[in-house]
Amino acid sequence: MLKVVKIGGNVIDNDENLDNFLRDFASLPEPKILVHGGGKLATEMSKKMGIEPKVVDGRRFTDRETLDIVTMVYAGLINKNVVAKLQAYGCNSIGLSGADGNTIPAVKRPPHPLDYGYAGDLDASKIDAEFITTLLDKGVTPVFCAITHDQKGTLLNTNADTIASEVAVAVSRITPTQLVYCFEMNGVLSDPNDGDSVIKRINDEDYKKLKDDGTISGGMLPKIYNAFAAIKQGVKEVVIKNSAEIKDETKGTVIV
Amino acid sequence: MLKVVKIGGNVIDNDENLDNFLRDFASLPEPKILVHGGGKLATEMSKKMGIEPKVVDGRRFTDRETLDIVTMVYAGLINKNVVAKLQAYGCNSIGLSGADGNTIPAVKRPPHPLDYGYAGDLDASKIDAEFITTLLDKGVTPVFCAITHDQKGTLLNTNADTIASEVAVAVSRITPTQLVYCFEMNGVLSDPNDGDSVIKRINDEDYKKLKDDGTISGGMLPKIYNAFAAIKQGVKEVVIKNSAEIKDETKGTVIV
Repeated sequence: MLKVVKIGGNVIDNDENLDNFLRDFASLPEPKILVHGGGKLATEMSKKMGIEPKVVDGRRFTDRETLDIVTMVYAGLINKNVVAKLQAYGCNSIGLSGADGNTIPAVKRPPHPLDYGYAGDLDASKIDAEFITTLLDKGVTPVFCAITHDQKGTLLNTNADTIASEVAVAVSRITPTQLVYCFEMNGVLSDPNDGDSVIKRINDEDYKKLKDDGTISGGMLPKIYNAFAAIKQGVKEVVIKNSAEIKDETKGTVIV
Repeated sequence: MLKVVKIGGNVIDNDENLDNFLRDFASLPEPKILVHGGGKLATEMSKKMGIEPKVVDGRRFTDRETLDIVTMVYAGLINKNVVAKLQAYGCNSIGLSGADGNTIPAVKRPPHPLDYGYAGDLDASKIDAEFITTLLDKGVTPVFCAITHDQKGTLLNTNADTIASEVAVAVSRITPTQLVYCFEMNGVLSDPNDGDSVIKRINDEDYKKLKDDGTISGGMLPKIYNAFAAIKQGVKEVVIKNSAEIKDETKGTVIV
């Protein structure tokens, strides 16, 4: 089954974590796609350049300067180093923004009621799953950064979780697909104080119960909500797991 | 005939020139590959970040910090904006470093007698012309930046002229290929004070004469030397012309 694996700051921001993860990811026998977020590097780079991250009404706002920085850091520094390392680990990969091959067209988020600047919204139906599959068929692993474009010449800063789920939905129309969200915990926990209390499997019914009794709360709610949305649109299963356990199929929480 | 077109600072550093060039390039009916240099942006970005360009014995030296900057600027900022603009002009393109798809493996230049830091040397025989041709066959135009990799996880800063000629040599084994060097002049001039005194055609014999009588001198010498080297390795013809005249086949100097 094709895997679409998303990694975020906890992997990207730590050289050792990243290296270990990429070695494990490279060794996965299945066809696979990697989607990476940006981590703290873009913020660090902004500071070095004396540019303050723009926050408007508590939201991160992507102005032109910030767009240039995330393009440099996500599509340049992180994406190309990830690809070079995967090559070293024997995984032939290709780094892509949504502009490359017009794989992920998006639209600039409307400025009303809240203006997010150069932020992209996307839609799985517009993603070029056929071209992505062509790369996979050639034995090449696509590595997506969180940059898309509006097809009118402008790049757009886009949520990496969303790219991962929409790409998974798009390719699931061609081949059975598993979506894997890697993060710093071992899965969805039944006891937040016990890192090993991983709930093995959650279906729609379980979800309602776990939400009602307060087991699932906070930042985990949208993650699982999005997981079910992806499944309803054709993704076979969604796994939420620790990035250090990517090779172990028995680990993490499976959402079906 | 497949065109491999190289643009440098005179196009990259000027928004209007770049936009005009990309519109013209997008409209070329032939299959095509673009190779772009970095222009002044990387130097500007270094300055913004308070990093002095490293020069050792008069040579530009790529230390780790500089490598990160050129990776961000060439493979990120410039490459992705060029691709987004080509998409807007109806040319489906894909931005690549040499690490992507392992298209251009290189070796770090040996540190003796002179150490250039993270600088890459390459060899047409290692370039994956088949994968590049697969993209062209899918109607996708490869856009190369001047970053390669050593296949051991390290990116390398690489001369864009060299990438253009070696890629042209590599793909010429599969399909007849024309290599086009765009620059700020109208071609090789018989009178350096007359911008319109373009020499239409130069063969090996002409070259010797023009070199001996001093018509060709300075920076033009290695350009033409490299052009003949590319032709000897299978490239059909090399054209040196003004970037503003990319659409006009009658313009520029043809080296055969």
